[in-house]
Amino acid sequence: MPLIDTLRSIVGAPHCLTVDVDMAPYLTDWRGRYTGRARAVVLPADTAQVAAVMRACAAAGCPVVPQGGNTGLCGGATPLADGAAVVVNLSRLRRIRSVDAANNALCAEAGVPLAAVQAAAQEADRLFPLALASEGSCEVGGVISTNAGGVQVLRYGNTRELVLGLEVVLPDGQIWDGLRALRKDNTGYDLKQLFIGAEGTLGIVTAATLKLFARPRAVVTAWLAVASPAAAVELLGRLRAAVGDRVTAFELISRPSLELVFQHIPGTRDPLGQPSPWYVLLELSDTVTGDTLAGLLEAELAATIAEGRVIDGAIATSDSQAQALWQLRENISEAQKREGISIKHDISVPVSAIPGFLDAAGAALAAAYPGLRIVCFGHLGDGNLHYNLSRPVRGENDEFIARTPEVNRIVYDQVVERGGSISAEHGIGQLKRDLLPDYKSAVEIDLMRRIKQAFDPRGLMNPGKVL
Amino acid sequence: MPLIDTLRSIVGAPHCLTVDVDMAPYLTDWRGRYTGRARAVVLPADTAQVAAVMRACAAAGCPVVPQGGNTGLCGGATPLADGAAVVVNLSRLRRIRSVDAANNALCAEAGVPLAAVQAAAQEADRLFPLALASEGSCEVGGVISTNAGGVQVLRYGNTRELVLGLEVVLPDGQIWDGLRALRKDNTGYDLKQLFIGAEGTLGIVTAATLKLFARPRAVVTAWLAVASPAAAVELLGRLRAAVGDRVTAFELISRPSLELVFQHIPGTRDPLGQPSPWYVLLELSDTVTGDTLAGLLEAELAATIAEGRVIDGAIATSDSQAQALWQLRENISEAQKREGISIKHDISVPVSAIPGFLDAAGAALAAAYPGLRIVCFGHLGDGNLHYNLSRPVRGENDEFIARTPEVNRIVYDQVVERGGSISAEHGIGQLKRDLLPDYKSAVEIDLMRRIKQAFDPRGLMNPGKVL
Repeated sequence: MPLIDTLRSIVGAPHCLTVDVDMAPYLTDWRGRYTGRARAVVLPADTAQVAAVMRACAAAGCPVVPQGGNTGLCGGATPLADGAAVVVNLSRLRRIRSVDAANNALCAEAGVPLAAVQAAAQEADRLFPLALASEGSCEVGGVISTNAGGVQVLRYGNTRELVLGLEVVLPDGQIWDGLRALRKDNTGYDLKQLFIGAEGTLGIVTAATLKLFARPRAVVTAWLAVASPAAAVELLGRLRAAVGDRVTAFELISRPSLELVFQHIPGTRDPLGQPSPWYVLLELSDTVTGDTLAGLLEAELAATIAEGRVIDGAIATSDSQAQALWQLRENISEAQKREGISIKHDISVPVSAIPGFLDAAGAALAAAYPGLRIVCFGHLGDGNLHYNLSRPVRGENDEFIARTPEVNRIVYDQVVERGGSISAEHGIGQLKRDLLPDYKSAVEIDLMRRIKQAFDPRGLMNPGKVL
Repeated sequence: MPLIDTLRSIVGAPHCLTVDVDMAPYLTDWRGRYTGRARAVVLPADTAQVAAVMRACAAAGCPVVPQGGNTGLCGGATPLADGAAVVVNLSRLRRIRSVDAANNALCAEAGVPLAAVQAAAQEADRLFPLALASEGSCEVGGVISTNAGGVQVLRYGNTRELVLGLEVVLPDGQIWDGLRALRKDNTGYDLKQLFIGAEGTLGIVTAATLKLFARPRAVVTAWLAVASPAAAVELLGRLRAAVGDRVTAFELISRPSLELVFQHIPGTRDPLGQPSPWYVLLELSDTVTGDTLAGLLEAELAATIAEGRVIDGAIATSDSQAQALWQLRENISEAQKREGISIKHDISVPVSAIPGFLDAAGAALAAAYPGLRIVCFGHLGDGNLHYNLSRPVRGENDEFIARTPEVNRIVYDQVVERGGSISAEHGIGQLKRDLLPDYKSAVEIDLMRRIKQAFDPRGLMNPGKVL
């Protein structure tokens, strides 16, 4: 039987798409940067069907591209242009299999949207802390395969730290049931770690056991004008020493980022009277209610204001005020999109190296491209910055975009010099695949290849991605 | 040149031991259960020497057994009896390479004792939370290779969660420099995860970047008599909902465990007036000082006492009182040692499954071995129990010990039925190697073998351990 007929018999004809117009939404990535082709897009209903699809594809020597909500930013879930692969979309695996509040764990299938996991946790009076702009669309399998980050990583960790167990369909169609819900298990190699962040190149994640946490019941949100990135780093250290892991978000925002928001997003306004080159948006939270949290924050701020490190600040006094502050942060990407194309970077360095990185990269870029506009914002608490560059005048931008390789080189050299990462939270996919060998040691690339070879010797899983 | 001469030239003659009396301390494990033989015990001074030793051994086809403080409990660092291997002891790699308080990270070489890492963190006004009974002797490389646990895992995670980066000498003598100090890095497979908990079967950890935390400045310690394990689980859930991650330890202790301590450890006494079948030793901590912590605990305890779940309790009012409570917990192993040999288990199940496990395993054992004494204690907050069994009369114990396989089968079947682990924190080593295939799926064993093959195709790294 031809492969497509086999796939149709496994998932049912309505869930095996082969007509271009039906397949189209699955063949272009969210940013619209990559469009591929596929022999079919199949939507299995459960793990057994995923395994049967994988077995059929393996028997036919047909590559497979696993896909979730298709919200990735590096083209990792988009098939290549050669049209050789079958896209396996996991969105129909939408069952939350169990919620165990006493064990602080929840088991969800790959196609459950992140927002639905958050809701199920809340219903059990727990928190699932992963929070992303795409949380309404992105799915469990995707956030695991990309090891998604977000704004609360400094408190709760990346997706990797939130996974207790996995169920995975392997490249030969076998199912690995690693759905453990244990905090301690030292019985050999921790296999789940390989599939987390592998972008579907080692197997297809079909379900996961995820960690839950106590729900915070008090939150304080503040917007601060800080003298410099160094002042922001100092404030973070002081706050953590004083209030520990109550610090649940600590975002750095440059003035040019904020100005783009004012310019393009109606209804936004400056929370403070005077402009400042840098801002911090921070959030403290606690399970314990009462005024303690605001009081603790005010005590620390008083000292830093006296030292001149924090210049001004506003503490939200209502949920809507807090939301308005977060809107300023969350609208930066959208404002930037409206402003026009730019050269974007998703980098990380040690938190302590952020001020030095910003100084050195800024100077190197200004020397090479005078008048460049640097839109910098991100998760200072994790050392992760979005560092986006454009010409101030739109007309000059096309020529600048053509210089992407040289611009990347300047930025990434400064990153790597500080032991940083050229992809902090978005992954590699197609976008940065060719950059990897420049910024990772040959030893490391070789070890990665050996793992790929060990798990997927025929190279069927998501070819052309990561490696 | 013969291998031993080459090794001598690399590390210097005084650090290449070949005489039996010199090698002896390195050839027997801490528990005295395993004694092996070796061609030599070498003590390199730095990573370059480790790499050179590894290259020389690889060239000679000589197996290598990596060893740290030699405090492991499963014989993982003891060479086999065939005497074919060279033991590479890392204890001379004792440099703390850097402390970066602003990045909450510290880089230590493999031979640094855990207690020295804790001290360096404290000197930088930070906490390194890993705490073990063997912390004065165990070393960084060993705790990483065994993914050590301890009493604060419910708050800070296992060693795995505390590692940001690794430096590893691979089986061919190449050095992998993965000493990153980043919170976010999504650039391919997370290689460090494979070496963590691999018990030296994939390479030799020579240095690690470790996470630091804010130092708690307030601690409350309490000893509670609880009605049942179910009451303890309920109390844990209630406390976490109320005070979140201030819960830094939550230990369950059975009355027989406590009685052994009274019997064998001079100067110990019952903190409470009436005996209870079960106890909880708990600790709350916070960076914020003041009476808040004790007040929060008392409020929750009042409610659980009213409900009859907590029967009685004592809150330490001084450091020495807190220490006395911890002494009761920490002396259980020693008391048990003095009482005589027993069949020990280091198991985990989901926290919610602990009461059911204790009921079912207890009933099955009582049916098979009437009058058996069950000494159960451990880290209830992580689902990890030490579950040790002996005859109440010493004379009958030898015959009972001979039944270890049948006893294990009863206990482990109950563990695995609940999705648990037969080695929660101690690892596999030699002790549980032959059990693994009975309790892991063939798929999982096969994936582990593929990794072993990919990294160490000649099987030189710590043969006879884990797999």
